Amino acid sequence: MKALEERIRREGKVLPGEILKVGSFFNQQVDVRLLMDMGVEIARAFCHAGVTKVLTVESSGIALAVAAAHALGVNAVFAKKSASANVSGELYTAEVYSYTHKKMNMISVSRDYITAEDCVLIVDDFLATGNAVNGLISIVEKAGARLAGVSAGIEKGFQGGGDALRARGIRVESLAVIDAFEADNTIRFRP
Amino acid sequence: MKALEERIRREGKVLPGEILKVGSFFNQQVDVRLLMDMGVEIARAFCHAGVTKVLTVESSGIALAVAAAHALGVNAVFAKKSASANVSGELYTAEVYSYTHKKMNMISVSRDYITAEDCVLIVDDFLATGNAVNGLISIVEKAGARLAGVSAGIEKGFQGGGDALRARGIRVESLAVIDAFEADNTIRFRP
Repeated sequence: MKALEERIRREGKVLPGEILKVGSFFNQQVDVRLLMDMGVEIARAFCHAGVTKVLTVESSGIALAVAAAHALGVNAVFAKKSASANVSGELYTAEVYSYTHKKMNMISVSRDYITAEDCVLIVDDFLATGNAVNGLISIVEKAGARLAGVSAGIEKGFQGGGDALRARGIRVESLAVIDAFEADNTIRFRP
Repeated sequence: MKALEERIRREGKVLPGEILKVGSFFNQQVDVRLLMDMGVEIARAFCHAGVTKVLTVESSGIALAVAAAHALGVNAVFAKKSASANVSGELYTAEVYSYTHKKMNMISVSRDYITAEDCVLIVDDFLATGNAVNGLISIVEKAGARLAGVSAGIEKGFQGGGDALRARGIRVESLAVIDAFEADNTIRFRP
């Protein structure tokens, strides 16, 4: 998605540890116009896939999941990272290692919100090693639902998570795929 | 907002501790059509207030903040609950007690994203004791920005946070205000 790539080039900052900071428009401050356009782009890619639910994990995936679900005309479901007084009933759970926070998180979704009748599109802001997405896929499998595919806003292609999913036959459509941070901190996108 | 009140009556579950569970359409699974309508309703209330930013705190406020910011045509800003490798630079911070998780959280916003030129609308999913909103207001004050007001999806009027803000002269527009959970677990809305 050209508009996203241009914005990343203009405002993205590469920090030590191959971290890409896009807080000015994507995950701390959100340019909601760009966000909704990203949702439309995701919907365009998956419009014939029969998607019935968009699934993400809190909190950074929520904004893009809402935009994609809005464009697809379906409900969004948020996997929770912690037990809460507001979450009750039977849950599907999965363990996910957070690269950003350097710890294991248990993520969970109520069994009421993903069922065997659903066709699920997984959406997240970033796709890097694929840990979060793999946790969400295992929840989709436990629910007996169909997986339409995976869509990330920004894929760090060089971390391999997206390509590992593609190698398993899973459709992955990321709006911008970064193949490398060059030595001078410029960003090389996958064509 | 009638559509929201009706949905709360139909699907909301009152749990022990005066917790209202609306996970089926509002904060675990999200009916994105209703959500976007809620955003339009918030924008209608604040359309003449000169709002330049919508501010919320992760994670449960994000969806409604995106909807409101979209309808108002402005950016959304998410206060973070934890330090992260992705957050850097100078921050505005505030301490907030989480009633749901029974612990203090430090919330923070980069100084780049709220400035003295901004007129900020604070949006959150729930307004109960007002702890989260008070933390966000203190961040708006530290930034020297103007506060347009506060809008919550669901206000638990009987917990007093919204009325305390109104008593301070702050404009609070909640889409549904609950005055009481009756003994038979029905919900009484403020007219």
